[in-house]
Amino acid sequence: MMRVVLHQTHHNVADFEGVLKTLKELDLSAKSPELHIFPEMFTTGYPLQDIVLQKSFIDRHQFLMKEIEDWASGLSNENICLLMGGLKYSFQKEQDAIPSRIENVVYQVLPGRKPQPVYTKMLLPNYDIFDEKKYYAEGKESKTIEWMGKNIGLLICEDMWYSTLHDINPVQSLKELNTELDLVVNLSASPYNLYKTEKRKTRAKEISKLLQSPFFYVNRVGAEDEIIFDGNSFAVNGSNSLNQAKAFEEDKLSIDLPQYCGEIFDREDSVENTWESLFSAGIIVPPNGSMPHLKELDHDHCQEIIQALTFGVQEYLKKSYFKKFVVALSGGLDSALVLALLKISLKPGQSLEAIYMPSEFSREISYKASLEMCEKAGIPFHVLPIKGTHEYCRDLFDKELGSPLEDLADENIQSRIRGLFLLARSNQTDALVINTSNKSELSVGYSTIYGDSVGAISLLGDLYKSEAYQVARYINLKYNKLIPEDIIERAPSAELREEQVDTDSLPPYEIMDTILEGILSYRLSGKDLVELGLPQEDVKKVIDLYRKTEFKRSQFCPILKIKSKSFGFGYRVPISKNSLYLSL
Amino acid sequence: MMRVVLHQTHHNVADFEGVLKTLKELDLSAKSPELHIFPEMFTTGYPLQDIVLQKSFIDRHQFLMKEIEDWASGLSNENICLLMGGLKYSFQKEQDAIPSRIENVVYQVLPGRKPQPVYTKMLLPNYDIFDEKKYYAEGKESKTIEWMGKNIGLLICEDMWYSTLHDINPVQSLKELNTELDLVVNLSASPYNLYKTEKRKTRAKEISKLLQSPFFYVNRVGAEDEIIFDGNSFAVNGSNSLNQAKAFEEDKLSIDLPQYCGEIFDREDSVENTWESLFSAGIIVPPNGSMPHLKELDHDHCQEIIQALTFGVQEYLKKSYFKKFVVALSGGLDSALVLALLKISLKPGQSLEAIYMPSEFSREISYKASLEMCEKAGIPFHVLPIKGTHEYCRDLFDKELGSPLEDLADENIQSRIRGLFLLARSNQTDALVINTSNKSELSVGYSTIYGDSVGAISLLGDLYKSEAYQVARYINLKYNKLIPEDIIERAPSAELREEQVDTDSLPPYEIMDTILEGILSYRLSGKDLVELGLPQEDVKKVIDLYRKTEFKRSQFCPILKIKSKSFGFGYRVPISKNSLYLSL
Repeated sequence: MMRVVLHQTHHNVADFEGVLKTLKELDLSAKSPELHIFPEMFTTGYPLQDIVLQKSFIDRHQFLMKEIEDWASGLSNENICLLMGGLKYSFQKEQDAIPSRIENVVYQVLPGRKPQPVYTKMLLPNYDIFDEKKYYAEGKESKTIEWMGKNIGLLICEDMWYSTLHDINPVQSLKELNTELDLVVNLSASPYNLYKTEKRKTRAKEISKLLQSPFFYVNRVGAEDEIIFDGNSFAVNGSNSLNQAKAFEEDKLSIDLPQYCGEIFDREDSVENTWESLFSAGIIVPPNGSMPHLKELDHDHCQEIIQALTFGVQEYLKKSYFKKFVVALSGGLDSALVLALLKISLKPGQSLEAIYMPSEFSREISYKASLEMCEKAGIPFHVLPIKGTHEYCRDLFDKELGSPLEDLADENIQSRIRGLFLLARSNQTDALVINTSNKSELSVGYSTIYGDSVGAISLLGDLYKSEAYQVARYINLKYNKLIPEDIIERAPSAELREEQVDTDSLPPYEIMDTILEGILSYRLSGKDLVELGLPQEDVKKVIDLYRKTEFKRSQFCPILKIKSKSFGFGYRVPISKNSLYLSL
Repeated sequence: MMRVVLHQTHHNVADFEGVLKTLKELDLSAKSPELHIFPEMFTTGYPLQDIVLQKSFIDRHQFLMKEIEDWASGLSNENICLLMGGLKYSFQKEQDAIPSRIENVVYQVLPGRKPQPVYTKMLLPNYDIFDEKKYYAEGKESKTIEWMGKNIGLLICEDMWYSTLHDINPVQSLKELNTELDLVVNLSASPYNLYKTEKRKTRAKEISKLLQSPFFYVNRVGAEDEIIFDGNSFAVNGSNSLNQAKAFEEDKLSIDLPQYCGEIFDREDSVENTWESLFSAGIIVPPNGSMPHLKELDHDHCQEIIQALTFGVQEYLKKSYFKKFVVALSGGLDSALVLALLKISLKPGQSLEAIYMPSEFSREISYKASLEMCEKAGIPFHVLPIKGTHEYCRDLFDKELGSPLEDLADENIQSRIRGLFLLARSNQTDALVINTSNKSELSVGYSTIYGDSVGAISLLGDLYKSEAYQVARYINLKYNKLIPEDIIERAPSAELREEQVDTDSLPPYEIMDTILEGILSYRLSGKDLVELGLPQEDVKKVIDLYRKTEFKRSQFCPILKIKSKSFGFGYRVPISKNSLYLSL
């Protein structure tokens, strides 16, 4: 009997020492055959972007490979085989500084031998956040390896998908090898997004049936800036789930290799699982002709989002060598939700504080609700009124420039004084400023650049306002009413003018969010959206705001990515674009 | 005799109406054969990034193609042929919203006929700022077309280069068609960078000789955010230059097609002209063992940089629908240089103003030099002291939080109050804020995020400090001493503390800039730099600062790109990276 061990590891990018330590601490004393599988680019972390080309990185990587070789040469238990993702650098001449070729490979490590690259990734994702064709050369053929009489099919991450846009289909070409497979393994570094875990497993079962073999999927854990890796490794056999690792934390699954037994389970209808289908957006168009709307988040998915965001922000905190968070609390939903998420995320030795910065337009309820929330949750709460500074600046402009601050200048400066205070507090206490903008605001530029848009990282930048409400309500259900009901129930307002509410200048969020999702995820035109049943006036207003505010998004902080289409690294558009093409 | 007309056009991205207007205004009355050549992606502009996938863009593009078809069907002069760059969208089914394939093609337009795609770009650049493999499908074969008995070889931009990293070499495969060519045309949308124009022409002559044919190169003019297209179209025949269009403006070249006559000119030795060679950096390592240093900018290149930057910033202004610039003048070199460049760039109806924002640490010479510069150049000069606001904030923090602003918090808030004022002034007067950071500062994070790093666009972000001096001195030589000598001669200082000068915390700029160029353009390791002869202590300090400050660069505004390796869209690195790999 062979045992398969999936190592769902958690290392930073370029954590060469940590990787070697993980290997050295493995229990490799098995009395019978044991196959240990590690994620894609286990040796280096993922994504590396340009640092894969940096000489110091290459040198350090080559040194690690030498260390692994030394370690492997000291192993003697023939029951052990390791498969781990890594990089293979090739040079035209031995002394070249610049590699002529870089491949994303599977290394096989056997006792007493030098690690061997046995397979090169064939399908290099190059859409959205992925730039793999920028750096890597693609593999040209499917491979299996034999070990202990078992025939092992190899795939790396994207290889398990296929697309009508690609000429290659690695799963199909594995089948066309016409060799009987005992198991198929997929080494992944697959970013998290909502609804993706289900899709991976559905596709895995489909592959298991197609190749008549159990299927083992091992994914890394971690977060690199905006990109979160959820782990969620698993094994399936036909339509049967064998085992499932945890989400967002290191884990290990040991599974005795079963015979393929797809036949005794119900066959599911084959579904189309292409990578394009990962990009399906969430608009529901009711058949009865009523208004299209966003798909609502159920409790499980609210919980998953909370896990993803709290994990992602903790990773960023750790890698930035900070131990404190600071948040500007406004009395509105977004900042309260961010505060709640940070509170949920806190680990021993870390701290969190809230700064409330009222203006002359702030209402008493904002103060009370903010204070109530912090008192209940035991979060230090500070008040720093902006009124005096605002008045001082007003007078200064009047006196020095003969030009008083009015209208937009007078609204924006309030938001920017808050940014100023928040950053000064961050400098003072060595705390990471967490941004509080949501995806709806970002999309229409309903924020002030260098004002409420400041921050090291954004938690809500991939959640529409209507979704933020759903997550907030779930938090109150699950986490002892962390967020005062007053905050959830009141009408959203930027409080930059007397009696201002968001709907003065924006359509209702449930309509706006649907329009935005149509533009961003479905890439629909205004005409399409109106045909779907959305109000023409609102569509026009949203498109108009969206296309004028690219400059704000372009200087925004990284946004924890939880959707298939998000602002950030994978969103690439001209800033000063001629936006005629977007008009209705 | 055939005449070749190169149309060096200047359109914004997605300027469908402008493109059609250009076509309709052509003089197509030629009495003998005339071949009109337009740049790559003439119909759409370049780069398009994600908007190439947006439904409204696709719809509008398809409509333009129909309009061009209608226009062409009305033409009757058989002496005319047009070759123009454009996109070809393919759909699996006619009603599909999502294209199954997008190609970057040459359209041939003949009188009375529908425009035909005749060639697909083979070499899709996917390095640095280029993402073409994200969007486009590559052509698989070289093509020639015949018109009026002439055999025309076709290339699109990158096709003229080759690389040891690629399997394809379109120039070579054009040669291998073994057909006699009467002319070769290259339709380009090739971004500007320093020293690139010379390299293009050297390579063109090489191709002309290789293919035994005159070579016509037509490039677009424009600037899309940070990327500048310089035009500089030309024709060569063997090693002979036939004609040369202007830089950074629309132009037209008419050239009577010559016979290939490479033989009668001197043959140059074949040079290696790969795209990697475009990435050569500018470090000079003296053979006598003295300190390595950056290559100095000669007068011609200083002039070219001034042209590129003034053109680029004007394009951004125009597309942002602004007519005014505002700059924070500090009394230092960078802001004075930015002011000078903007002054040089000004067009009728535009205006420029300077704001001087002294703190308690600002020295009298800063005020005097700033005032002198503005008076001489006729630029409105305003003084807005930050001292009062700074003190007000200090007191507020002390009073409300019991924690006075000290050290870094107290330094940074000064820079951020300047940012606050500058943005308020921008809101007040509807002026675009131009950033004043240089590449050296950006590299080591010697700036305050949301403080002196604010702005809509950066002019100096691709110029090292030592290069900024060279350009400033050239401006004083050429443009009537625009910049007071006091500003050029004094020691650089951020003036955030008493008597502060940059070299208190940074190595001398001539050493630091060389180290930075080594890291950024050559991707060298610290060890390599020390081996080159740079001081170990300085190398260590620079690497340390560089790797800790990615977060500042990640929220920076677009930087007009004038080098082969720049910060911005083509610079892709993790922000919260584990930077072990960069250590000495």
